Amino acid sequence: MPARSQSIRYADAGVDRTRADAVKVRIQKLARSTFTHQVLAGIGGFGALYALERGRQPVLVSSVDGVGTKLKVAAQVGAYQVVGADIVHHCVNDIAVQGAAPLFFLDYIASSRLDPAVLEQVLRGMVRACRTLRVALIGGETAEMPGVYAPGEMDVVGCIVGVVERSKILPGRVRPGDRLLGLASTGLHTNGYSLARKLCFEVAGLAPRSHVPELHSTVAEALLQPHRCYYPVLKPLLEKGWLNAAAHITGGGLTENLPRVLPRNCAAEVHLDRWPVPVLFRWLERLGGVSAGEMLRTFNMGIGMVLVVSPRLQSKVERVLRRHRMKFHEIGEVIRKSRHGREGRQSVRYGGGWR
Amino acid sequence: MPARSQSIRYADAGVDRTRADAVKVRIQKLARSTFTHQVLAGIGGFGALYALERGRQPVLVSSVDGVGTKLKVAAQVGAYQVVGADIVHHCVNDIAVQGAAPLFFLDYIASSRLDPAVLEQVLRGMVRACRTLRVALIGGETAEMPGVYAPGEMDVVGCIVGVVERSKILPGRVRPGDRLLGLASTGLHTNGYSLARKLCFEVAGLAPRSHVPELHSTVAEALLQPHRCYYPVLKPLLEKGWLNAAAHITGGGLTENLPRVLPRNCAAEVHLDRWPVPVLFRWLERLGGVSAGEMLRTFNMGIGMVLVVSPRLQSKVERVLRRHRMKFHEIGEVIRKSRHGREGRQSVRYGGGWR
Repeated sequence: MPARSQSIRYADAGVDRTRADAVKVRIQKLARSTFTHQVLAGIGGFGALYALERGRQPVLVSSVDGVGTKLKVAAQVGAYQVVGADIVHHCVNDIAVQGAAPLFFLDYIASSRLDPAVLEQVLRGMVRACRTLRVALIGGETAEMPGVYAPGEMDVVGCIVGVVERSKILPGRVRPGDRLLGLASTGLHTNGYSLARKLCFEVAGLAPRSHVPELHSTVAEALLQPHRCYYPVLKPLLEKGWLNAAAHITGGGLTENLPRVLPRNCAAEVHLDRWPVPVLFRWLERLGGVSAGEMLRTFNMGIGMVLVVSPRLQSKVERVLRRHRMKFHEIGEVIRKSRHGREGRQSVRYGGGWR
Repeated sequence: MPARSQSIRYADAGVDRTRADAVKVRIQKLARSTFTHQVLAGIGGFGALYALERGRQPVLVSSVDGVGTKLKVAAQVGAYQVVGADIVHHCVNDIAVQGAAPLFFLDYIASSRLDPAVLEQVLRGMVRACRTLRVALIGGETAEMPGVYAPGEMDVVGCIVGVVERSKILPGRVRPGDRLLGLASTGLHTNGYSLARKLCFEVAGLAPRSHVPELHSTVAEALLQPHRCYYPVLKPLLEKGWLNAAAHITGGGLTENLPRVLPRNCAAEVHLDRWPVPVLFRWLERLGGVSAGEMLRTFNMGIGMVLVVSPRLQSKVERVLRRHRMKFHEIGEVIRKSRHGREGRQSVRYGGGWR
């Protein structure tokens, strides 16, 4: 293991988050100009809400996402099935946090040159995930674009559509005092791979198949753990109406995803000593001397989903989680935002240090 | 203009269609294994049909597509708005031919490095198209993936969801004797760009801004004509129930797209002398000495959409087309398939030569 050289930020890995944020704001403003009265805007934002008829059932929830550069790690060891499943799980989680049951999924797979064997692996991963979740892989497109994609490279994109009863749309009423239950992730899921790859392959100079004693696995095995799908455990909770909100911890980590489900007058207080950060994240942190703040807004740090639950329902929710053998930790609570907080911006306040 | 050198086929442009077809069959088989009873399979295939409730309203129609390498031409002259509109129009056409009204659209834009100005141009094109069509640009994702995309390259993908009454799903009952009305395209739309680019920039050695007297424009201007959206003219026809089928002429040309809406016992007879092939296509044909057959299964040849209409409704349909100032030609008719035709494979029989 190399000595710490310098602190690595996400921007050093070629992804400029500030620029990306500025672009996002501009896009949102443009997109908003197309909204008809059927678009239910401004609620959460993991999935997009569309009411087929004004004020009536059903409400469709949709989301589109790519699998990102996890693909590059998959390609290095020829493990394509995992990214096929990942994109389905990622999309399903994104609409589940708005209360939606997934209905159907469409994929887009593009590369410099279609390799049928690779494509089939990706598809097999998608199909297996779809079958398990009873989601129809209803359509898709494959494109061969030499020159657009670097030789041997590909992109995998998914689009999901689900449905929710209007009265069960999340986030619901989130209040100070609500508990934050963090559900365990299975690894990096599908976020932070540009930085993780830089840390492993450039800073540490490791190969995908290098064995890392600390991780009890190779680098690729550690990085290619599947993105956990939380829908099976969320489903009974959504049906009972026991959740006030849920946040899918993806790009931006807890820092950016948790505030998305909080009302303006609330913040989240997260105690970092309430759960054991998995060794993979601690190892990555050390490789680049990455700051805790940067880690928390790049990786999920072991928490792939956060449920926001009223104290009076907490034990019931926890019973369901235990029945599903879902590892979880009470990582904090919703607090009233201090008046000195920046206006219009929800935030996460971290306390304690890694356990 | 260079002398004809040799016949250029699509495969020479780096896109292998036979391999792509083999992959598609494999994918379809895999995807089919995920279908629930809510998926209405085996009807047409431009959009995917999903019934929210078994046997009841509404039926959702969805489609995903990329804008392809038209983007590369757009990038050469910095004209990104057109591809933004193109992907919306392409997707809307794809579900309109199944009878659907578009509801909402999601985009995915990925590149090696996000250029906010470029992104905004693409988005502006999408937004303008969405507003005109009253489609909500409800969600989207932008991704920065250095290493996956070649430097400066990007991909633009769209996913549309629309709705159709079950009784109005197209194709309906198509019968021998039905007329084929070809609606004029505005250019290449979004297909055949790998071949077109090869012909213009490699074979002919032209630059995007080279003026071509024959085209009365530069190469880029000719190639960047927007993909026409046929939904506004289809809408009244769909509402009246005057169409038996409609085919969006995209990749694969008339040859592959027309048969997709024909029943097993029918074929299409298309008379090539019934419409004037626009000069752009004739010019491309000559540049590479491309065969007529190859042209017909690569480009739309001036026909961007084909309506399949009963003879008794033909004059009514034509009146609507004229009222919308839509240029059209009766390009042929549906015929009973000869018993000697290949089993299970619908086909287009071409007669006559270019006019």
